[in-house]
Amino acid sequence: MASHYSNYYTQQSGLTADLYHLTMAYGLWKREKSETPAVFHLFFRQAPFGNNFAILAGLDMVIDFLTEWHFSAAHIQYLGRLKGKSGDPLFPVAFLNYLQRLTFSGSLHAIPEGTAVFAHQPLLRVKAPLVQGILIESALLNMVNFSTLIATKANRIVRAAAGDPVLEFGLRRAQGLDGALTASRSAFIGGCVATSHVGAGFEYGIPVKGTHAHAWVMCFDTEMEAFEAYADALPDNCIFLVDTYNTTAGIDHAIAIGHKLRARGYDLHGIRLDSGDLVYLSKLARQKLNQAGFTDTIVVASDSLDESRIIELKQAGAAIDTWGIGTHLVTAKGEPALGGVYKLGAIQQPDSSWKAVIKHSDTPAKTSIPGQLDVRRYYDKQGSPVADMVLDESLYADHQWVDMSGEHLISLENHTYTKMQVPIFTNGKLVYSRPELAQIQQYARQQGDYFAERRYASGIQKRLFHKKQQMSKTT
Amino acid sequence: MASHYSNYYTQQSGLTADLYHLTMAYGLWKREKSETPAVFHLFFRQAPFGNNFAILAGLDMVIDFLTEWHFSAAHIQYLGRLKGKSGDPLFPVAFLNYLQRLTFSGSLHAIPEGTAVFAHQPLLRVKAPLVQGILIESALLNMVNFSTLIATKANRIVRAAAGDPVLEFGLRRAQGLDGALTASRSAFIGGCVATSHVGAGFEYGIPVKGTHAHAWVMCFDTEMEAFEAYADALPDNCIFLVDTYNTTAGIDHAIAIGHKLRARGYDLHGIRLDSGDLVYLSKLARQKLNQAGFTDTIVVASDSLDESRIIELKQAGAAIDTWGIGTHLVTAKGEPALGGVYKLGAIQQPDSSWKAVIKHSDTPAKTSIPGQLDVRRYYDKQGSPVADMVLDESLYADHQWVDMSGEHLISLENHTYTKMQVPIFTNGKLVYSRPELAQIQQYARQQGDYFAERRYASGIQKRLFHKKQQMSKTT
Repeated sequence: MASHYSNYYTQQSGLTADLYHLTMAYGLWKREKSETPAVFHLFFRQAPFGNNFAILAGLDMVIDFLTEWHFSAAHIQYLGRLKGKSGDPLFPVAFLNYLQRLTFSGSLHAIPEGTAVFAHQPLLRVKAPLVQGILIESALLNMVNFSTLIATKANRIVRAAAGDPVLEFGLRRAQGLDGALTASRSAFIGGCVATSHVGAGFEYGIPVKGTHAHAWVMCFDTEMEAFEAYADALPDNCIFLVDTYNTTAGIDHAIAIGHKLRARGYDLHGIRLDSGDLVYLSKLARQKLNQAGFTDTIVVASDSLDESRIIELKQAGAAIDTWGIGTHLVTAKGEPALGGVYKLGAIQQPDSSWKAVIKHSDTPAKTSIPGQLDVRRYYDKQGSPVADMVLDESLYADHQWVDMSGEHLISLENHTYTKMQVPIFTNGKLVYSRPELAQIQQYARQQGDYFAERRYASGIQKRLFHKKQQMSKTT
Repeated sequence: MASHYSNYYTQQSGLTADLYHLTMAYGLWKREKSETPAVFHLFFRQAPFGNNFAILAGLDMVIDFLTEWHFSAAHIQYLGRLKGKSGDPLFPVAFLNYLQRLTFSGSLHAIPEGTAVFAHQPLLRVKAPLVQGILIESALLNMVNFSTLIATKANRIVRAAAGDPVLEFGLRRAQGLDGALTASRSAFIGGCVATSHVGAGFEYGIPVKGTHAHAWVMCFDTEMEAFEAYADALPDNCIFLVDTYNTTAGIDHAIAIGHKLRARGYDLHGIRLDSGDLVYLSKLARQKLNQAGFTDTIVVASDSLDESRIIELKQAGAAIDTWGIGTHLVTAKGEPALGGVYKLGAIQQPDSSWKAVIKHSDTPAKTSIPGQLDVRRYYDKQGSPVADMVLDESLYADHQWVDMSGEHLISLENHTYTKMQVPIFTNGKLVYSRPELAQIQQYARQQGDYFAERRYASGIQKRLFHKKQQMSKTT
């Protein structure tokens, strides 16, 4: 089925950029530098939420975006109408004609979705004509930043739930309609078993789940009548929301209908709590349900929950089986943006050699790593990851690893490794076969479980670290 | 030009809902209650960021959404494949056929975009067949919550800037691509003068602005060469980013190019600071620029800024003329979701009378206001707003105002008033003519300036308050 993103990309496409990308593109074109091959890296400097790692997501959108990337006649007309400060057109026609002929002809390497990734690792490496590499910056950042943020948040929440199913309920509070869709996909990658958002089920095949709203109860004269009507229509899908008027009475009403359902050969699937003292009420519900013989009926809770609240509720002995998480998950409340950046690493010279470049900063952690960067994940003899290393394989190939400060040195000589980045586009051609979403979810779960349990070391090749220090001094 | 939202709506449309909306819709249809007229209100219970009011936005998207609202053949096929717990289809074919014939046939009243609105005021009032009112809940909430949140944040930031232009720079950090577009539109409504996001310029006609990135400087051997190349290509648009290597040297380089520009008949438009001590560096830049005769050259600052930081920097005497705000604005960092809700207020009875309904809560502020709600804004003789009142005009029409707790009573008898909600759709037909975005911006500015300066009272009609209390006790 056609992705709604395709529509978006067709409509907005190359204009998904900041104005300065276009002015820089024009400057490079005028200088006849537009086709100079260059390498860019997309990375973050700190994992979100105090996590050690992030769960990478968003590559799927990046692939769609680059596949569709172009400037339409309408885009060109729009750009032609932009004026500089003096009132003259900002861009000459010849440059606009050049833009209109552009498609993405570069190469992209990326770490697959669902991987646990660490600060300073190049998640995406773009090798493309300078202008193309520059023009796609903000779109790539937007897609990877948001998806990775939510997948990481979901992974944290799902780990806090310690095996209980977590449902994503965020559509109404997400940042925009497509924010909601992307959040549903990322939440599923991060380990949520289902979403309430039917559009995300349609678009991505994510299982959809739901109960009913307070409005349902308010459509009837009494709560009993409301539950009865629901059970009549959907005997197969009864999770009663019990807090519209009085939760204790609501639980009793649900149980009363449960008996009727049972007589008809159906189960009372669950009850849902959406307010009040969730510890007390969930224990009360469990007790009442058990006493009435509904030991398999689940207790679902939803009420501004996040990973800390889940841990608290579990510690307090709440009898909650399934967690519905909305706002805090889909907006990553507390830290609603991943600060991913996209930096030039190397630029080809007229003699075809490559020149590494560096972005300085007074804060050393903000100084970029120069070169054409690769990432290796090293494994022990049992096949478990032991350390990741950022390096430039075009320069040095040894196994001397240092941490990001350059202080701790280890040799990874006797370990096997894999390259974390895989080819996605080669000279504009898509060469990657995308995994199914369920596979990505399974992989992310393994990654999260493995890396959450240990202090894992991600560092940089010793010689590259020295090169960075040297360039930092001399530029 | 076709809106990208149209594409989105065509693709997702009726599926922009939670599963429980569809199961409830089916339950109502089965009970032959689907066409019962009902009234729903969309409101928030607390304005964001500690603000007294919010700047309303998002109605434009709501209009597009309701205009396009439908279930396509593909949607119906998808819904037909959903299964209940037992493995049987969740929805019978007859119901799906009913869904496929639906379009929005209801009426919508809404407060216009740009209005300063207060907690508990029905921003949108939907009067529609019960099923329709229920199915559109999450889409309406999503669109109004996010747009209103960002417009309100922008209004706060723009007021903190106290007359300095504020530019929105958020594309790369926004929550999704459409999150970015919507944020650009809302930021403009909230008072930003321009966006960096070219797609938002294309889609909404918002002015686009930009400078250049660190990558531009890194494309050249020296900063001087980079500035010179930029000035060569875009002499009309020179705002140099001076912190790629060393800010003090960067300012000197910008000035050197400024002299060359002047010799060619152009101005050095500005310099931009993106890191470091913005107070010290902006003063230094101002001093150096003034000494070199560039008194009109502006100093732009961008570096994780928000309204508090702007106020701090201004108090510390920073010489910043223009503010570029990204992450904190477009994600509303700190409070990334407005908690808007959508509640059933009244339902028509078989005898055509209306029955008001109420959603209870142990927290009185969470108990909904029953009825078919209107909002009036009362004015003094000078035409200045003095108080807003929520009421049900189908019940009572007097002017006795109480605050939300019912404690403070005033009579607004001798004041004129306007109805804040205006007709948008009447029986499915769009009857509203949408204002230009620039008009909305101007209106929002006036509203923000007026309401930020006083403790403004928004309350409820006394008799309606008593009715609420009564219903709260007896249900």
